[in-house]
Parts: sequence; C-alpha cells; structure tokens
Amino acid sequence: MWRSLLPIGRNAASGGYRRHAWTGADADCRLWFQAQAEARGLDYEVDRNGNQWAWLGDPSPSSSSRGYPMRGDAVVTGSHLDSVPDGGAFDGPLGVVCAFAALDELRRREAVFTRPFGIVNFTDEEGARFGVSCVGSRLTAGQLDGEAARALRDADGVTLAQAMEKAGQDPAVLGADPERLARIGVFVELHIEQGVALAETPHAVGVASAIWPHGRWRFDFAGEANHAGTTRMADRRDPMLTYAFTVLAARKKAELAGARATFGKIAVEPNGVNAIPSLVRGWLDSRAADDATLSTVVASIETAAAERAERDGTSVAVVRESYTPVIEFEHALRDRIAARLGGVPLLPTGAGHDAGILSGAIPTAMVYVRNPTGVSHSPAETAAEDDCVAGVLALADVVEDLACAAPGVG
Amino acid sequence: MWRSLLPIGRNAASGGYRRHAWTGADADCRLWFQAQAEARGLDYEVDRNGNQWAWLGDPSPSSSSRGYPMRGDAVVTGSHLDSVPDGGAFDGPLGVVCAFAALDELRRREAVFTRPFGIVNFTDEEGARFGVSCVGSRLTAGQLDGEAARALRDADGVTLAQAMEKAGQDPAVLGADPERLARIGVFVELHIEQGVALAETPHAVGVASAIWPHGRWRFDFAGEANHAGTTRMADRRDPMLTYAFTVLAARKKAELAGARATFGKIAVEPNGVNAIPSLVRGWLDSRAADDATLSTVVASIETAAAERAERDGTSVAVVRESYTPVIEFEHALRDRIAARLGGVPLLPTGAGHDAGILSGAIPTAMVYVRNPTGVSHSPAETAAEDDCVAGVLALADVVEDLACAAPGVG
Repeated sequence: MWRSLLPIGRNAASGGYRRHAWTGADADCRLWFQAQAEARGLDYEVDRNGNQWAWLGDPSPSSSSRGYPMRGDAVVTGSHLDSVPDGGAFDGPLGVVCAFAALDELRRREAVFTRPFGIVNFTDEEGARFGVSCVGSRLTAGQLDGEAARALRDADGVTLAQAMEKAGQDPAVLGADPERLARIGVFVELHIEQGVALAETPHAVGVASAIWPHGRWRFDFAGEANHAGTTRMADRRDPMLTYAFTVLAARKKAELAGARATFGKIAVEPNGVNAIPSLVRGWLDSRAADDATLSTVVASIETAAAERAERDGTSVAVVRESYTPVIEFEHALRDRIAARLGGVPLLPTGAGHDAGILSGAIPTAMVYVRNPTGVSHSPAETAAEDDCVAGVLALADVVEDLACAAPGVG
Repeated sequence: MWRSLLPIGRNAASGGYRRHAWTGADADCRLWFQAQAEARGLDYEVDRNGNQWAWLGDPSPSSSSRGYPMRGDAVVTGSHLDSVPDGGAFDGPLGVVCAFAALDELRRREAVFTRPFGIVNFTDEEGARFGVSCVGSRLTAGQLDGEAARALRDADGVTLAQAMEKAGQDPAVLGADPERLARIGVFVELHIEQGVALAETPHAVGVASAIWPHGRWRFDFAGEANHAGTTRMADRRDPMLTYAFTVLAARKKAELAGARATFGKIAVEPNGVNAIPSLVRGWLDSRAADDATLSTVVASIETAAAERAERDGTSVAVVRESYTPVIEFEHALRDRIAARLGGVPLLPTGAGHDAGILSGAIPTAMVYVRNPTGVSHSPAETAAEDDCVAGVLALADVVEDLACAAPGVG
C-alpha cells in the first residue's frame, strides 16, 4: 500500500514531493485514497470542502448498517496527502496509510466495531499553493469563510475556485459543515514527529499534549529600483538590506525567547541581477510555547525592521496572514490514549495540524511516530520501518479502545 | 517617433518596461526599428546575431551608392531597445530614437555624407532573460561563443536557441562577425546617464571617459530544509541567515572601497513559508573604478560569507558568471567629441554598454544625456525633453563632424 503511493508527485531531481492542492499529483493521491477505500468495501465520499472520507458503518446519528450496532458517534482517524514544496514522504501520508493499515490489523484481530469508523484525507493541509494552511479542516470547522477561500490565489494568479473547478470539484459549496462534524465523536491523527523528542527516548510513539500558537506575517520592504552599477551606495534605498537585517534580527529574537522564527519564502521585484530591488517581500513564520511570548517575539522583529528601514531609507509594512492560538488537546482523551499505549510520552509541537483546527469543535488527539533525525518538510524526512509498524499497531490499539467492543489481542 | 515606441512592452501595473530578448514585446520593438529605417529610405538588415542595422550608403569598403562618395569607413550610432524587468523608457531606446532624430536633423541641415552612416539596435543588451548582458555585441565581437549563447536558458528553461527560433531567427549562425565590424570606422552610442554627475553641472550632455570593471557572481548558500515550526533554532542549518549576513557584508565592503555591490536577484528552494530553505541562491553584481579594487571587494565579501557559513552550519559556493575588465574609451575620439560639443564633462560610469564591448575591436565613444534624479533600471527613470533635444543635436553634431563634408549649420 505504501509503495503504491510513493511515486506520486515525486520530483526526480530533489527526491522531494510536490503534492500541492488541486494539482495533478494531488488528483493522483486522491484516486489512490478512493481505491484504498473501495478495496476495503468502505463507503467513499467527498464532502463540500473536498475532504475525502471512507466509512465503515453509517456515521449518521441513530442508524446502523452492515450489522454493526451504531451509536452515531464516529471514531475517525486520518491526516492529509498533500505536501510542502519538495516535502518528505511521511508528513501527512503516514497518518492516512497507517489508518488503512490499522483497519486491516483490526480485521485481523476480528475486532467488533460498536461505533462507526472513518478514515479521512483533509484537503490542502500544507497551504503550499494558496498560502493558507489546513484549508479543508478550517472550512469544515467554520474557521475559514467559503468566499475568502474561493478568492485565494496561487503564485500564478489562479484562484482556489478555478483550481477546484479544473479538478472537477464545485467551489460554490465551500463552507462550514457542522452537520458533518456532529457525526464525529472523536478524531485521532497519527503523524510523524517533526522533532527529535522521541528519538531521545526508547519510545517509538508518543501522544500530543499541545500545539504551539503559530502565525504567518508578510513583511513588505519597499525601496527604490535603480541601476546596480551606477547608483552610489549612499544614494540607494535598497530594501534587500532591510530584509537581510530583519532576517538576522528574527533569528536573535526567537533564540532569546525560546521561540521559532523563520524567513523561508521571499519574492523580489524586479529580481534582476543589475537592478536594486523596488520591493522585497519576506514571509515570517513564527511560533512559541504561548501566545504572549509569540506576540512579544513578533513585535520585537517588527520594531527591528522598522528601525532598520529608517536607516536604509526604505519602508516596511507588516500584514498578519494567519494566526492560530495555542491548542491544548483534551486532557482526558490524550491521557487515556497515552495509558492505552503503555505510558508513552506526552509532547508539545510547533507544527500546525488538521487535528489542531478540529480540536475547537470535537474531542481530538494526536499520536506521533518517532523521527530519528527530526528532519521534516524535506526529502530527508524519514522514519524507521519498525517505528511505522509500531505506529500502525498503536493506532489499531487506540481505535479498538475507542470504537470496538472486544478487547484487543495485539 | 518617441510616442510610437512608448506603449510597447509596458507593464500597466508598474509603469515599467518588460522588453526581454526574443519576447513579443521585443518583436514589436524590432518591427518599430524596421519601420523607422524604411520610412527614411535606409537599407535595413539583420545580422547573424540578430542585431538590426539601418544603412545610409553602402558600408562595404571601396564602394559607393546613392551618389554618396564612400570611404568604406562607416560611422555608426545606436543602442538597444530591450529592457531590464520593469525598466525605464530611456535606457537603450533613447540612443536609438536620437540616432534616427539626428539623421533627420542632418537632412534638415542639408549635410553631405562622406562616409556611410549606420544606425544599430543591438540585441539583448540587458541580459534580463538569459542572464548574460550585451549578447548581440558580445557575439559579434567574438567575446561570446555561438555554442555557449545557444545553450543559455531563461527562468522557464527555454534556451536562447529555442527563443530565437520561435521569433523566426536562425540560431545556427550565431557567432563572431569580424567582416561586419571591419565596415565600421567608429561607433558612438548615446545613452541616458545612470547617475547624477551631469545633474550637478549646467551641461545637458557629457562624454564617457571609461566604464568601470564589472562582474556577476552567483553565491549558492546550501543548508538543510526542515520544518519551520518544529526545528529548534540551535538545530538549524538555515542558509537564509548566511545569505542575509552576506548581503549586509557586501554593503559595508563596497561602501568602504568606494565600489558598488548589489544583491538584487534571489532564488530560494523550496521557498515555502513553513520550510527552512535548503538552498538560497543570491547574485552579486559588483563594480569599482579599477580591477584591483573590484577583486579585493569581491574577495572580502566571499570571505565574510564563508565565515558566516561556518557559524550557520551551511556552505557557500561562488561562481563568477561574467566579468568585464575596465574599459578606457579611445582618448583621441572622446576628446574630439567633447571639444566638438563645446567642452562638456568627461564621465566614468559603472554601467556596461554595447559600446564597451565593441571598444576592444573598433574606435568607440559614448555621449550621455542628463538624468535629473540619476534613477535608472526603474519606471521612475526620466530625462527632461529639452535635454533629449540637446542629445539629438549633440549626436547630429558628432555625426556631422565624423561623417559629413560640409560644416554644420546647427
């Protein structure tokens, strides 16, 4: 199953994945999901926001199907199949592959489901193409407006609405889906760890305690385009200098506060070798253990940028493009899961997830699989095969605990 | 005439020009040149390297035509019509428009030509699309190999050969053209000044003394792609930090040496908001009054980059993509022109020009037109109408002095 997914959207040169929302590679991943669902006899559906679902049992409240007694209180697991540019093979797909594999394991154990069980692929988690992360889950949870989502544009100016239409999905119906969320009693997302906390322990898996608050800010540094050969250094208003100073300041401020700050994306105009830029646009990704720390760090970076702009004769304007406050996963659920898995560690993370978005609406938990190097969002992202198997078994244990009548035999 | 050229390749949003070699906007400029030549009854031709020529009289040695006595020692003027991304209206086109206007002025003066007279539009002077400047004149002068030129690629991977073919020009014949150069006795290029030296004098025009040595260096900063939210600051190998430090170091080193250093172009991989980059590629454009100073400045920037890379756990590799040594224009010619124009100032420049390329093969001079702000390579580039008229008259005076028998009446 894992092997059949590996070639999709892989860039031959980098070895990384380019599975951006509503592209051809994304469509191939979605076909793969549908085929996995159908091969297991699950009911396959795509919701109004483009998220894919595979159901065992009817999740509608007070109904039953295929002989499973239903409480209308579905247990759902899954993750996402899209990637960052040149991302790794595990971030997202591991949670979807393990979901199907956990169901196979539960069938092997002859587990009897007492609640409907679902597997989900949330659309456009990474936001690599349209700049907003977790689009599928945000829309469903009502955290992103359908109108605003339709108007999002990629680097080529294509709107999300146009991209969805091209992929055969109707963008007119994008929006909050409370009825769908009401079917779900609990959502558990398995994900590769994006750090080295588990690697420093004997545990192959861990459970999420919280997601750090996280935001994206766009810094527009404006100066004056001019000839690189003839303009005296003192006569320049070069926004690249202000940008460079701000990048170094962000590093210092984040280090001092124990936070994270990254300038990983840049757009320059006119971006010519012999032209002083008129505009340098840099995106800051910043996160910290709590909202107050994050807000202090970002404010201090903005101040440093503004002071340097004064010196460079440039200007800087900052727009907050997205913000997600700190998320504490439900304590009872996370403790039950950690206990069921034999007392594995509880870990906070700086990464955003669909589970974090949904945690505001339904009980949600996350299981992490050990990452030996901590590397993520890179072709070098990896996990040991044994640890992936441990992830499948752990997820099967958790689902069995939450959704099945009989005690497990794993 | 000027008005008919203005709309071509203009970007409505920025007001700047995007006339890149072998694009549709470039083709329109070339049609404009041909129409101007034909409207004046000049012989129009395109040479093997795509440069456009308009001839009054036959420039072949020892021949004559249309009743002009010929010495086979042509006087040529002109410049280029292509632009940097979002460039101004004057850099290049002013020299071509003034060339046609100077011919009109000489006809008004009833000047009698004793030498063939030519107007030229050199192809791809800015190098905005394929990364090498002065492609048309470099090829003609044998400073760029036909094979190497054909293999140049734009940002979309299109080779120069493919772009030329698409524009209906045969790339197979690209190469040195000594026979054509042998026809030319002297080349004078009129150009807008790309600095404020003339603006600080009462003179509308000046004459070039020298072109500073000039080079382009590509700095490849390599690190490790990783997740921007989960990777601790201390665990990172972030090449954006090394790049930022190098940008600031370049500014300082250039300022101290009275040189110029600019990072105006950047390419980042993967260029995702939530990914620490694996690669930051920055292009350094640097120039100085002499070769020794330039080489010292660039070496000190390289050293600063390497030291910072050590600290950041990244690496830096530097490739010199192009280099043009200092160019002193022929003293006798430049002094004759300056005297003919009434003792206008002699100015050095940091900008490269086709005249600089050709100066190695034939006697070459440049006339500058005053630029009130010094701004160039930007939509804000401008020249007063009176100064442009002064440029036309000055160019007419120079051509009359060099190519005509009768004394001028202007």
